[in-house]
Amino acid sequence: MNEKLFSILDSYYDDMVALRRHLHQNPELSFEEKETPALIEAFYKELGIEVKTGVGGNGVTAVIKGGKPGKTVALRADFDALPIQDEKDVPYKSTIPNKMHACGHDGHTSTLLHLAKALHTIKDELHGTFVMIHQHAEEYAPGGAIEMIEAGCLEGVDAVFGTHLWATEETGKIQYRTGPFMAAADRFEINIQGAGGHGAQPHKTKDALLAGSQLVTSLQQVVARRVNPVESAVVTVASFIAENAFNVIADSAKLIGTARTFAPEVRDLVEKEIGRVTEGTCLSADCTYEYNYFRGYPAVVNHAKETDYLVKQAAQIPGVTIEESEMQMGGEDFAYYLEHRPGTFFFTGAKPEGVDNPYPHHHPKFDINEKAMLIAAKTLGSAAINYHEEA
Amino acid sequence: MNEKLFSILDSYYDDMVALRRHLHQNPELSFEEKETPALIEAFYKELGIEVKTGVGGNGVTAVIKGGKPGKTVALRADFDALPIQDEKDVPYKSTIPNKMHACGHDGHTSTLLHLAKALHTIKDELHGTFVMIHQHAEEYAPGGAIEMIEAGCLEGVDAVFGTHLWATEETGKIQYRTGPFMAAADRFEINIQGAGGHGAQPHKTKDALLAGSQLVTSLQQVVARRVNPVESAVVTVASFIAENAFNVIADSAKLIGTARTFAPEVRDLVEKEIGRVTEGTCLSADCTYEYNYFRGYPAVVNHAKETDYLVKQAAQIPGVTIEESEMQMGGEDFAYYLEHRPGTFFFTGAKPEGVDNPYPHHHPKFDINEKAMLIAAKTLGSAAINYHEEA
Amino acid sequence: MNEKLFSILDSYYDDMVALRRHLHQNPELSFEEKETPALIEAFYKELGIEVKTGVGGNGVTAVIKGGKPGKTVALRADFDALPIQDEKDVPYKSTIPNKMHACGHDGHTSTLLHLAKALHTIKDELHGTFVMIHQHAEEYAPGGAIEMIEAGCLEGVDAVFGTHLWATEETGKIQYRTGPFMAAADRFEINIQGAGGHGAQPHKTKDALLAGSQLVTSLQQVVARRVNPVESAVVTVASFIAENAFNVIADSAKLIGTARTFAPEVRDLVEKEIGRVTEGTCLSADCTYEYNYFRGYPAVVNHAKETDYLVKQAAQIPGVTIEESEMQMGGEDFAYYLEHRPGTFFFTGAKPEGVDNPYPHHHPKFDINEKAMLIAAKTLGSAAINYHEEA
Amino acid sequence: MNEKLFSILDSYYDDMVALRRHLHQNPELSFEEKETPALIEAFYKELGIEVKTGVGGNGVTAVIKGGKPGKTVALRADFDALPIQDEKDVPYKSTIPNKMHACGHDGHTSTLLHLAKALHTIKDELHGTFVMIHQHAEEYAPGGAIEMIEAGCLEGVDAVFGTHLWATEETGKIQYRTGPFMAAADRFEINIQGAGGHGAQPHKTKDALLAGSQLVTSLQQVVARRVNPVESAVVTVASFIAENAFNVIADSAKLIGTARTFAPEVRDLVEKEIGRVTEGTCLSADCTYEYNYFRGYPAVVNHAKETDYLVKQAAQIPGVTIEESEMQMGGEDFAYYLEHRPGTFFFTGAKPEGVDNPYPHHHPKFDINEKAMLIAAKTLGSAAINYHEEA
Repeated sequence: MNEKLFSILDSYYDDMVALRRHLHQNPELSFEEKETPALIEAFYKELGIEVKTGVGGNGVTAVIKGGKPGKTVALRADFDALPIQDEKDVPYKSTIPNKMHACGHDGHTSTLLHLAKALHTIKDELHGTFVMIHQHAEEYAPGGAIEMIEAGCLEGVDAVFGTHLWATEETGKIQYRTGPFMAAADRFEINIQGAGGHGAQPHKTKDALLAGSQLVTSLQQVVARRVNPVESAVVTVASFIAENAFNVIADSAKLIGTARTFAPEVRDLVEKEIGRVTEGTCLSADCTYEYNYFRGYPAVVNHAKETDYLVKQAAQIPGVTIEESEMQMGGEDFAYYLEHRPGTFFFTGAKPEGVDNPYPHHHPKFDINEKAMLIAAKTLGSAAINYHEEA
Repeated sequence: MNEKLFSILDSYYDDMVALRRHLHQNPELSFEEKETPALIEAFYKELGIEVKTGVGGNGVTAVIKGGKPGKTVALRADFDALPIQDEKDVPYKSTIPNKMHACGHDGHTSTLLHLAKALHTIKDELHGTFVMIHQHAEEYAPGGAIEMIEAGCLEGVDAVFGTHLWATEETGKIQYRTGPFMAAADRFEINIQGAGGHGAQPHKTKDALLAGSQLVTSLQQVVARRVNPVESAVVTVASFIAENAFNVIADSAKLIGTARTFAPEVRDLVEKEIGRVTEGTCLSADCTYEYNYFRGYPAVVNHAKETDYLVKQAAQIPGVTIEESEMQMGGEDFAYYLEHRPGTFFFTGAKPEGVDNPYPHHHPKFDINEKAMLIAAKTLGSAAINYHEEA
Repeated sequence: MNEKLFSILDSYYDDMVALRRHLHQNPELSFEEKETPALIEAFYKELGIEVKTGVGGNGVTAVIKGGKPGKTVALRADFDALPIQDEKDVPYKSTIPNKMHACGHDGHTSTLLHLAKALHTIKDELHGTFVMIHQHAEEYAPGGAIEMIEAGCLEGVDAVFGTHLWATEETGKIQYRTGPFMAAADRFEINIQGAGGHGAQPHKTKDALLAGSQLVTSLQQVVARRVNPVESAVVTVASFIAENAFNVIADSAKLIGTARTFAPEVRDLVEKEIGRVTEGTCLSADCTYEYNYFRGYPAVVNHAKETDYLVKQAAQIPGVTIEESEMQMGGEDFAYYLEHRPGTFFFTGAKPEGVDNPYPHHHPKFDINEKAMLIAAKTLGSAAINYHEEA
Repeated sequence: MNEKLFSILDSYYDDMVALRRHLHQNPELSFEEKETPALIEAFYKELGIEVKTGVGGNGVTAVIKGGKPGKTVALRADFDALPIQDEKDVPYKSTIPNKMHACGHDGHTSTLLHLAKALHTIKDELHGTFVMIHQHAEEYAPGGAIEMIEAGCLEGVDAVFGTHLWATEETGKIQYRTGPFMAAADRFEINIQGAGGHGAQPHKTKDALLAGSQLVTSLQQVVARRVNPVESAVVTVASFIAENAFNVIADSAKLIGTARTFAPEVRDLVEKEIGRVTEGTCLSADCTYEYNYFRGYPAVVNHAKETDYLVKQAAQIPGVTIEESEMQMGGEDFAYYLEHRPGTFFFTGAKPEGVDNPYPHHHPKFDINEKAMLIAAKTLGSAAINYHEEA
């Protein structure tokens, strides 16, 4: 069956590219998606596939029933873009200022749509049922996954698979990892309130900028000393905002950052320890503060059995190499699906041809090797159609 | 002679207030002054006093020759305003958005104009010559004084006096200090260049925000350990600019601040030590940097003899109390006049009546006690007319 | 064969305990071992087993040849003690002041000796050859393993196995780990040279104590920001030595610490980055420094095949539970054997009975559950006698 | 009268040197003085001068009554030595190991004794009464002055004068200062309690060494930001004590240091702010602490009238130059006398001849120019005998 599926997918390649480029030219930001779900809906309707829109917001789901009994497998692709100005010099460049598909979700969407079309074509020969989850708002917490799950997109589903095209890995490579794969990605904000004044009179002030600087310096101990060294964690202060005339002592300072962890207890610890260091440093500097820690997506924890299964399937695809991935400190709301159903999330290498140092994801010149879409489609597809053989 | 002068000045008080309020409603920023020098010129022309405009930019000078032989004494008043929104609720509030006489230079100008008028009235009885220096751009380095001196405003001058109305000191008080009085006020900028990246991948970046934070923390040692503790110095980092998305590691960070010192060797030391700490901290953080130190006004160093003389004169004015001032960390480009001629700069208390905690200079609600103008006029006036008696 | 071996070992238990207690009462420090190797030699001689002393220093090896063809398997036990005062209240307490078997090497030795005796008893039925490596000086770098290997203790050996009795894990538990298991354990020293002076005159000095403090603070960034967060590393400054009269500024400061890593490239990075931060911080503080990084044992990296084999063997021992271990930040010179031969190192739980919070290794009250020696002997023994079945 | 006194003093010079060298060879530590007060007593007794020993401990006072009416003037010299090994290569080197007159108190004592002898010789011609205060224990807080004052050494005294021979200033120079002259010299100790552990397991510990390092770093803000920049203050951490095996995380750390201030409110502020920074830093590091601040001598604050008088007297001594001193950050318990009586404390330059960079006070090779004793004697002497002329 795999060969048949693969050959149909191969025949769709030009359409796959065309649709991806259309999406690339028309990016929509997280939670603001309108035309993209409409396009997805139209695609399914034209094929006569059962489709549902407005699933948990802007999400879309479609269901293809195979002609033979079997399990229900969900495949997920996200479709939102980013608030970045496209700086590539290509014909399919974004037409919308300051919006760009800088993370490959356009490719995910075209991949899943054409895989669905292929499955639909051969559905009578297939075992089980296939749920296509087109998810909005992956880029912006709390993300679309929570809402779509609450809206029932996983009802009846036995296993869920998803992939990310990954431009910094060789095209042809499938990267998997059992257990913790992508980090919990949280955000924190610390507002330090001192007492401003004239730059020449520090003794009459409480210097919030100095307090903030000492805080950033001291926060290094959270990862270096508080977290078990065999666990992984990152605490990054990304923004330091304290802008004043050159002769004015800062009244306040704002720090914004991100924390990444895998184990839930490390996540709790990091949240607590940032708070402890903030409290102590502000006390030391005679400033007050407000500390807020916003939990983003939890860690993506792949299920062992489904990961093994996925690797076995991928290994059969011509031209594919398999590699165990390191843990990734980036976050993904695919995590939520895996909290509800067995499954696995993997990377599909998508490094542009002839490029040694590809632009990383979220870069204004980011692009993918479109051929990777075919590999993603085949991997997801064989995972879907063979799952009935699993115990 | 003093009594006569004082009584004339008393009779001008209402005009002095009216003119100050007119200026207060029509503030002009440093180096952008147009109407103010025109008003000053017109004031002198109407009295038939010799006046020169465009002196070193927007400066104005006027000369009054006494009928008797003597020394030439210069009196200086500055006339520029600040880019601050006037938030006072008074009829004479600034009419120009975001511009305000928030440092009392309107009062200085009205004081000097009416003192000139009074001297002109009794000029036949006076010894020597009086040069009125109306200076533009005191608030913004490099300041107007340098240019006016280069344009010759001190030619033939034997001594120079100036005062600042000081809203946080009691009206009626004259504050003097021999030697170092107001600090050298310098500005510095440090641009730290790291290598940005994803907030979850610190090892692929050079975190400029962390480097900047460590730098601010380490800079405290310059004043605490490098400067002789019996000398005075301030190093303030006023701005920390590194704004990024919450999950992005800062590519660069910009620090802007001010350094205040009195002794020239301490000034040199502070400039050098900020550089040393910056070099070491950036090396430690594997970042590069650019460090620029811009010298502002030098320290105001009052001459002993002229300060003693001024105190003696002020002591004779009814209702005036004399107090030695602490050194002031604020800067003043009156410093340049004192590098060329003997003289002294003093504070004239101008605390608004019935106010316990007056708004400080440069505050959006700053105001003065207008009666202080009379005291300033009398003090400068008696310093001017009696100087011929000095050896 | 296993059952026979196990039952012989069971019968030796009282002797095993007696010998361990004798060793416990007579500890010898690393590189100073004399009576212990003599005792080991005597034990083998009495049994008529071929024994060699003075192997690479104080090491002892013994060889038992099985009656049937097979592989050569080496088993290693270390026998040195620590410079710690025994504070336990037991009859077998150390009789030597400030020396103590505070890490269980007495147990290792008794275990291996009695296992050898048992193998000797049934040697005609065994396949292959068994090399008993009794190693001196595990506690003190450069350790005894290097020398013993250079002296040829691994000649002809096909695989090597070793274990550590581990008092903080439940008795009955075998902990294994494939790949990196125990960390590379390095030591570093940083001598900061400033210029001392009177405590009241910081400007005439270069404060080495302040420089050292800033350095310890800044070193936190090495683990927090320079090391890939999915890798493990520790940088600990253990000693800060700068003792002076209360009114004297420190002329010098000495920092001593340890770095722990697994991946060789992380080890290189940590060594380099400590140097970078030291250079920058000392430059910032106008001090000079000397930085030395002494490489201790490399990481213990277990071989996959031998680890799987060991787990399979251990699983057959009555009463044993198997658990994958986390990576351990502690070091072990067993690492060197694994650089030369396939093999694996594992932990044998040895938590004293009825104790919830056992004293950790190197604690003055440290003790083991002696029953763990039987489990260690059986696990090592079955690994040794069944290895001929491995391909 | 001055000439007569000076000529007598000149004739004593050889004796003055001899006695000073005798004392130099026989130093006694603070609060342990025995032979020195006995020698002083014997000196006075031999001359028939009224002498009292055991004044407030080891202190000695002597009284010389002039033949004419007048004021009572006290002159003070301290006589204790330091726990320093004399490393000079001179015949009069200390004979006691690890004890040394490394601050010139031997010279003070010989100066005062011979001045007393001279006054005694001409006492019939002198106005008023002269109290010689030979004080023990100046080097070690709480010092001998408090006790001697409590024992009544200032009873009936109208004014008090004292000097310090100062080896880093030119011989022949008298340095005076009105108002704050020498700093309040306090000591502080901070004991940080963390939770120690294995160097490879920071997450199970609370690293007291790191906390201490962050504290030293953060304490720089006390002087740099909390103290008014026109005031003087020093906060020095002199000792950092945390010594452990290289692979052990510090359980505790001890910091010892000194704070120097002039203004009482700055002294209070510094004590409080060290506490605040300590509290915050330890909270941030999850450690506890004990902070003790021990007040040493208060600031030496010279009285204006007596300082002017002293300068006038010194100016008349042949070969003497007068110089206003900077404030000195070192401490002196002469401060206490000035809290009870008008007076002044001054420096008498004592730079050894032909030496460009003299060894500083408290240095193992410290020495003085003995000729400075004559200048000190003449200055104190003329201050004593002419005081009756002061209103």
